[in-house]
Amino acid sequence: MAEREAGLAAEVELTVRYAETDQMGFVHHSNYLIWFEAARTRLFQRLGLTYSQLESEGIYSPVVAADAKYLWPARYEDLIRVVARLDRMTAARVRFNYEVYRVKDDKLLATGSTMHGFIDQAGRPLAIKKRIPLLWEAAKQAGIGSGS
Amino acid sequence: MAEREAGLAAEVELTVRYAETDQMGFVHHSNYLIWFEAARTRLFQRLGLTYSQLESEGIYSPVVAADAKYLWPARYEDLIRVVARLDRMTAARVRFNYEVYRVKDDKLLATGSTMHGFIDQAGRPLAIKKRIPLLWEAAKQAGIGSGS
Amino acid sequence: MAEREAGLAAEVELTVRYAETDQMGFVHHSNYLIWFEAARTRLFQRLGLTYSQLESEGIYSPVVAADAKYLWPARYEDLIRVVARLDRMTAARVRFNYEVYRVKDDKLLATGSTMHGFIDQAGRPLAIKKRIPLLWEAAKQAGIGSGS
Amino acid sequence: MAEREAGLAAEVELTVRYAETDQMGFVHHSNYLIWFEAARTRLFQRLGLTYSQLESEGIYSPVVAADAKYLWPARYEDLIRVVARLDRMTAARVRFNYEVYRVKDDKLLATGSTMHGFIDQAGRPLAIKKRIPLLWEAAKQAGIGSGS
Repeated sequence: MAEREAGLAAEVELTVRYAETDQMGFVHHSNYLIWFEAARTRLFQRLGLTYSQLESEGIYSPVVAADAKYLWPARYEDLIRVVARLDRMTAARVRFNYEVYRVKDDKLLATGSTMHGFIDQAGRPLAIKKRIPLLWEAAKQAGIGSGS
Repeated sequence: MAEREAGLAAEVELTVRYAETDQMGFVHHSNYLIWFEAARTRLFQRLGLTYSQLESEGIYSPVVAADAKYLWPARYEDLIRVVARLDRMTAARVRFNYEVYRVKDDKLLATGSTMHGFIDQAGRPLAIKKRIPLLWEAAKQAGIGSGS
Repeated sequence: MAEREAGLAAEVELTVRYAETDQMGFVHHSNYLIWFEAARTRLFQRLGLTYSQLESEGIYSPVVAADAKYLWPARYEDLIRVVARLDRMTAARVRFNYEVYRVKDDKLLATGSTMHGFIDQAGRPLAIKKRIPLLWEAAKQAGIGSGS
Repeated sequence: MAEREAGLAAEVELTVRYAETDQMGFVHHSNYLIWFEAARTRLFQRLGLTYSQLESEGIYSPVVAADAKYLWPARYEDLIRVVARLDRMTAARVRFNYEVYRVKDDKLLATGSTMHGFIDQAGRPLAIKKRIPLLWEAAKQAGIGSGS
């Protein structure tokens, strides 16, 4: 538990929805990317950055890469905990990684990561240090490198 | 609030996910049916009926009709409360209705209803009274009519 | 078939996706609203109105009500035809109805309707006759009433 | 084009749905996994293997890993072509890779891959050579290695 709290991390709990299952009887694998995002949203909120507010300032954060490993299936009505952690930051990009747990037995069901750029409405890349200083400073304080 | 607790009702809270928005900047209208279902799942749980358990007994509850009215848009990061209420029951069908509120100002964003049958794995209709007596008795006690 | 071509109608074909199924083994009912929308998009295109272009002119068309009846389940890999038809128009609102067929046996799986308003970016209602004259004239020529 | 036809490949075309967009105005990144799957389904069909039939024989093919790179955004109403190609096969696992193109200018929007196991209904791994010989032989003929 302590390990999960360390660094720049946040978590959300959610209950698996019927619509998230597929005919194999498991959660369809595409939904994990949506769950990752829910935990990432919470992490931004913890930093005092609401994603909605960033967008209102014309800052968008598209996903440029994503990956996931599926270890054990999640099922309908399972209570799930998703942990997002800031993993790496460069001048213009940031990477988060994720862990998905089944709450009742703390079983790790999936892991993953996403890489994000920051762009303005015209699609031009933005410097994190200048445009999202809260994120930059928080990463520095957590000892997360900003080397490329 | 008191009104919401009356009868056979249950509610869930959820935070709007980014993937649920569309390019209009609002939650896409199809997601409300998924939210309705989350509250219906909770209502089944309150009755001691987990939907997963029903399915393990070979009882399925397909949606035969659904409708929704969209009054005000939900937006990314909004905290939402969805109330499901058992509305009507006949020998083989049950109807739920729903209300979707934005928590911060208790604003009613949408209403809707779904009608469900109960079938076995071969698709044959099941009598609620016989196969799901917990649901039948709960509805009776709540004064919810079982006339056709 | 002839009947389907009459009036202001359009159709799309689609193959059921695995992610659209749920653990009951059928297409989850929320997806039909998304399929309705795909056929509605095609109908707008047939009128020379791309929905993307409307939005670039600051015209949005939120769904204010939707309903569906589910007659028979759609299954993974089924080829599906969705028909959208302009049903009714008033000064500020338009209603479409839909039919969902399984192509291999022309079986009607579902029907439904959606009601739409037209608003600008500030959320103010727009008059169809003035702001979307192509739609207004097409409805007139098809004999679709504009009474409230 | 010729390159795309080579080996064990298949493709599908699809039109971006409104529900697939998010408030950034692009297709939400989770949908690409669903598109990959649509092309993979087609590839299975080309091999004479319908995925539905595999499941009716008690053969399931869960995704054990997935990744995607997002190069350029897809937008509402874009016509998209998704190419799936069998990339690697071992005794018990198979990997596909994917390319997503915007049809109008043949622009490559995204790439990705998925790794799959094969299991029975009890979750036990199945040997591809024995249980899905059509897939095994097709891979052999296409020169796709079966080394681990």
